[in-house]
Amino acid sequence: MTEIDRMLAANEAWLGQFPGDLPVAPARKVAVVACMDSRMPLFGLLGLEVGDAHVIRNAGGVVTEDTLRSVAISQHLLGTRAVVLVHHTDCGLQKSTDQDFADLVERTTGHRPPWPARTFTDVDADVRESMRTIRETPYLLSTEVRGTVYDVASGRLREIS
Amino acid sequence: MTEIDRMLAANEAWLGQFPGDLPVAPARKVAVVACMDSRMPLFGLLGLEVGDAHVIRNAGGVVTEDTLRSVAISQHLLGTRAVVLVHHTDCGLQKSTDQDFADLVERTTGHRPPWPARTFTDVDADVRESMRTIRETPYLLSTEVRGTVYDVASGRLREIS
Repeated sequence: MTEIDRMLAANEAWLGQFPGDLPVAPARKVAVVACMDSRMPLFGLLGLEVGDAHVIRNAGGVVTEDTLRSVAISQHLLGTRAVVLVHHTDCGLQKSTDQDFADLVERTTGHRPPWPARTFTDVDADVRESMRTIRETPYLLSTEVRGTVYDVASGRLREIS
Repeated sequence: MTEIDRMLAANEAWLGQFPGDLPVAPARKVAVVACMDSRMPLFGLLGLEVGDAHVIRNAGGVVTEDTLRSVAISQHLLGTRAVVLVHHTDCGLQKSTDQDFADLVERTTGHRPPWPARTFTDVDADVRESMRTIRETPYLLSTEVRGTVYDVASGRLREIS
């Protein structure tokens, strides 16, 4: 039995807590943009109920073209207006550089990835840059864009101004 | 008080359940790639504990360049090897077309987005295409790639073969 088999089997237990059918549009009109890190259960740490908010996650929680695509769909098709970013301490992307990562992948697989890893050194600066990108993207409808850093050692969110 | 203020305030309650510091590498060596839909609390519906798995999410759960970047970082820097895709019924991306979406954004903001929305009609086919893309990407190290569709009306996951 693989870990994925265990996850599919765990879905049976979820059926006992399933809250029922809900509308496709998020009730609280917020899109969360966060890192993929395994230590951030966003529903728990932001107090979200099922159906409250879109959750967009990638390596770093950085704002890429795909993040903008997702936020645009969230806003134009499904009515969200606020965006909250959640980066975090001890991120894997702070432990490498774009050059070292590309070298590692090429050495391991024989193929060099055609895109940068988007590593960073200063998490606060990375959150500010992500907020700026969302605010300056002309085809979005954001009315509120805020950024935070989650401390994986304490569970605490810190807002970045 | 905005919805984001409420989410930041809810973080205080999370501190009472916070499980403590954990390693950056996911314990179960799995990356979940899923849609951003607000009705999918992935930790609950896959039986995940904090620290178990990376969670990558975008509009549709489709495999984009940014998804491949995230999975590559998950595998090469943080040791995951399995990938499970979670798409779902009643997806916002099934309710529009790339052309209609671009027209809507241009009409509303005066700016046409430079990328396609990645709408789709057949969710099972979209899961199969996403699995194929991950399996065929030469710079990944996946040992197991599986795909599912979550039924938002019943809470049940269905595996796609």
